[in-house]
Amino acid sequence: MALINENYLKLPGSYLFAEIAKRVNNFKAQFPDANIIRLGIGDVTKPLPPAVIDGLHQAVDEMADEKTFRGYGPEQGYAFLIEKIIATDYRPRGIELDIDEIFISDGSKSDVGNIQEIFGINNTVAITDPVYPVYLDTNVMAGRTGQYVNGKFENVVYLPCNAENMFRPKLPKQKVDLIYLCVPNNPTGTTLSKSELKVWVDYARENRAVILYDAAYEAYIQESDIPHSIYEIEGAKEVAIEFRSFSKNAGFTGTRCAFTVVPKSLMAMTQTGDAYPLNKLWNRRQTTKFNGVPYIIQKGAEAVYSPTGQQQIKELVAYYMTNAGIITEGLKSIGLQVYGGTNAPYIWLKAPNNMDSWEFFDKLLNETHIVGTPGTGFGPSGAGYFRLTAFGNRENTEAAIQRIKTQLKL
Amino acid sequence: MALINENYLKLPGSYLFAEIAKRVNNFKAQFPDANIIRLGIGDVTKPLPPAVIDGLHQAVDEMADEKTFRGYGPEQGYAFLIEKIIATDYRPRGIELDIDEIFISDGSKSDVGNIQEIFGINNTVAITDPVYPVYLDTNVMAGRTGQYVNGKFENVVYLPCNAENMFRPKLPKQKVDLIYLCVPNNPTGTTLSKSELKVWVDYARENRAVILYDAAYEAYIQESDIPHSIYEIEGAKEVAIEFRSFSKNAGFTGTRCAFTVVPKSLMAMTQTGDAYPLNKLWNRRQTTKFNGVPYIIQKGAEAVYSPTGQQQIKELVAYYMTNAGIITEGLKSIGLQVYGGTNAPYIWLKAPNNMDSWEFFDKLLNETHIVGTPGTGFGPSGAGYFRLTAFGNRENTEAAIQRIKTQLKL
Repeated sequence: MALINENYLKLPGSYLFAEIAKRVNNFKAQFPDANIIRLGIGDVTKPLPPAVIDGLHQAVDEMADEKTFRGYGPEQGYAFLIEKIIATDYRPRGIELDIDEIFISDGSKSDVGNIQEIFGINNTVAITDPVYPVYLDTNVMAGRTGQYVNGKFENVVYLPCNAENMFRPKLPKQKVDLIYLCVPNNPTGTTLSKSELKVWVDYARENRAVILYDAAYEAYIQESDIPHSIYEIEGAKEVAIEFRSFSKNAGFTGTRCAFTVVPKSLMAMTQTGDAYPLNKLWNRRQTTKFNGVPYIIQKGAEAVYSPTGQQQIKELVAYYMTNAGIITEGLKSIGLQVYGGTNAPYIWLKAPNNMDSWEFFDKLLNETHIVGTPGTGFGPSGAGYFRLTAFGNRENTEAAIQRIKTQLKL
Repeated sequence: MALINENYLKLPGSYLFAEIAKRVNNFKAQFPDANIIRLGIGDVTKPLPPAVIDGLHQAVDEMADEKTFRGYGPEQGYAFLIEKIIATDYRPRGIELDIDEIFISDGSKSDVGNIQEIFGINNTVAITDPVYPVYLDTNVMAGRTGQYVNGKFENVVYLPCNAENMFRPKLPKQKVDLIYLCVPNNPTGTTLSKSELKVWVDYARENRAVILYDAAYEAYIQESDIPHSIYEIEGAKEVAIEFRSFSKNAGFTGTRCAFTVVPKSLMAMTQTGDAYPLNKLWNRRQTTKFNGVPYIIQKGAEAVYSPTGQQQIKELVAYYMTNAGIITEGLKSIGLQVYGGTNAPYIWLKAPNNMDSWEFFDKLLNETHIVGTPGTGFGPSGAGYFRLTAFGNRENTEAAIQRIKTQLKL
């Protein structure tokens, strides 16, 4: 008799986007002519940069000719792409990496979801709260979290991030083994300075913990003291895995390419206390369960690193960050408490007048016809907060802020 | 202290291809001018069909324009592709499937590797022997197999396939819960008829087992009584998940697209005896840990289903099957025992004179400068066998057989 993995049944239903859709549909039924603007979703809207388009077309042509056709590639990704990542994203920041320390993948969602597989079941997991749900859900599925009781999993250490601590998580009081950090943060849009991040690296070194560092929004950092890579912090290569993505810097959300750095000096332990390199485990995981990213897509990603490509992604990021500025300034101008938006494409706001997240959702939809994301969807500490994103086009973003300024009753 | 997943340490090192490379390199050092022909690898050599190339170029152009740009798509794949799969691959064989019963993925390797996640740890796994190593290794990693003792994992039921049973596995004597079947088979190139497959479906129905049916080589079936889908067998929708791929029928080994069918009527059980739909669990797995196949690649796969695309992949398969015929006939003509090659691109041969697989590897390399794959690499019952593949180009395939006929000392 085949048995299911019952850990899946511990997951509370993911009602966030279904509930949003339901309320939007109800609203539409009542007001069919309303022009709804969506500022809730973390998906990009601008097309792929021209350099990437050229790279993709060239690669497609190569696949049409027996002499240049590519079959199975290395599961870890092609060296032509990894070398450019090292030379462009890491070496200029004083970080040296070997080719076999970077693994190209089809997305950070896959990697941050799969990474927990190489760790034992008996690790204590810490997540910031609010959080990107994949970190938590994948650990639930693996059986690492215990039961869901009063809105929290009993064996998970939640690190609240809120206005009181300016969205900087405090070190946990109990010992933890795996720590998920997302900087710049989704959903709060906030960051950690080098000295703030150093506290976490030091904690991990002292406690032999591993930091799973999601830097998917690294390209949006504008301020100089914010680290782009955790490896800018001394000793981080001994304690951290870093996740990067082409989704948000180059518009690859529907094109699918990302990479993960697993330094060879990073160890975790066996039950009997022997250190074992995580690079070797991740390599075994990827070579056994993954067959690499399409050659065509890797050539598109490579084009991101040409001088033209670098210029074009800078312009792309600047476009979205101008949106972020418009949203941030607009919300502040009417007296709302606003966070993020400076080094990230996410704007996190406190719902006014102690409204809860869903009350503010309804108010914003009814009064301004704008759809955002209730903060509660990202965890208990998201209660009373609300997320807007800068990934819309300029016209919609400006129109939305104009409506908020003139139609929202505070 | 972060702990590793120690199940990974149970895996014996994957020395097969490393050992092949070592022996080939030694040979090259001795005979630098030898013209080595590789007939060992399951990778295609012909370029993508022109219809696919057109589909890819068009999709790249769509990604360059804000009006047609695609960001995040459905994790399960686009309906435009799933609808064509149903209409072309299933409906003409009398199999009706709903759109939400098919999940597009980046490869069958990923899917056959990840599928075990939705099952509990306490399932008994049966694999045919020899076998595609991913089925076994991913269950080892998950902790479902026990220790590796005398070349076998102690909790896995091995179903020997050899010349004595004409490579048709016998039903297991002990009760099993998850059964991996690959038809047409990699590595043996053999198949099961409808009545032979029905025995397995009936077993699964009686024992509430689940069959994980890898049909990656379905397009190579030439004979009429061989089922292309397990759902041609009555009742299979209640017991089987089917894996299909564009890798071998359309040359997508480096382009990465496949799909998996999880019928909504397929159930597995909780410990307390409640039936639970596996479709729902796989959907949760995919939406949590995967973000879909690139839009561009899905458009390339869609082009496989145009009338031109269908004609072109038929020609591609026919090309490789002509190679398979050349190899099969050539080997038979010198008196070797040869299996497969009729409904599959794999030719499985018995090493002559009771040689073991590696002895024959060395003999073939030394006397004919041809590289194949020792059968032992696929499991204990592969001992004394050897795999050749039909994926080379015609010139090399003909030259290889000519050499075997004239230079191999039997």
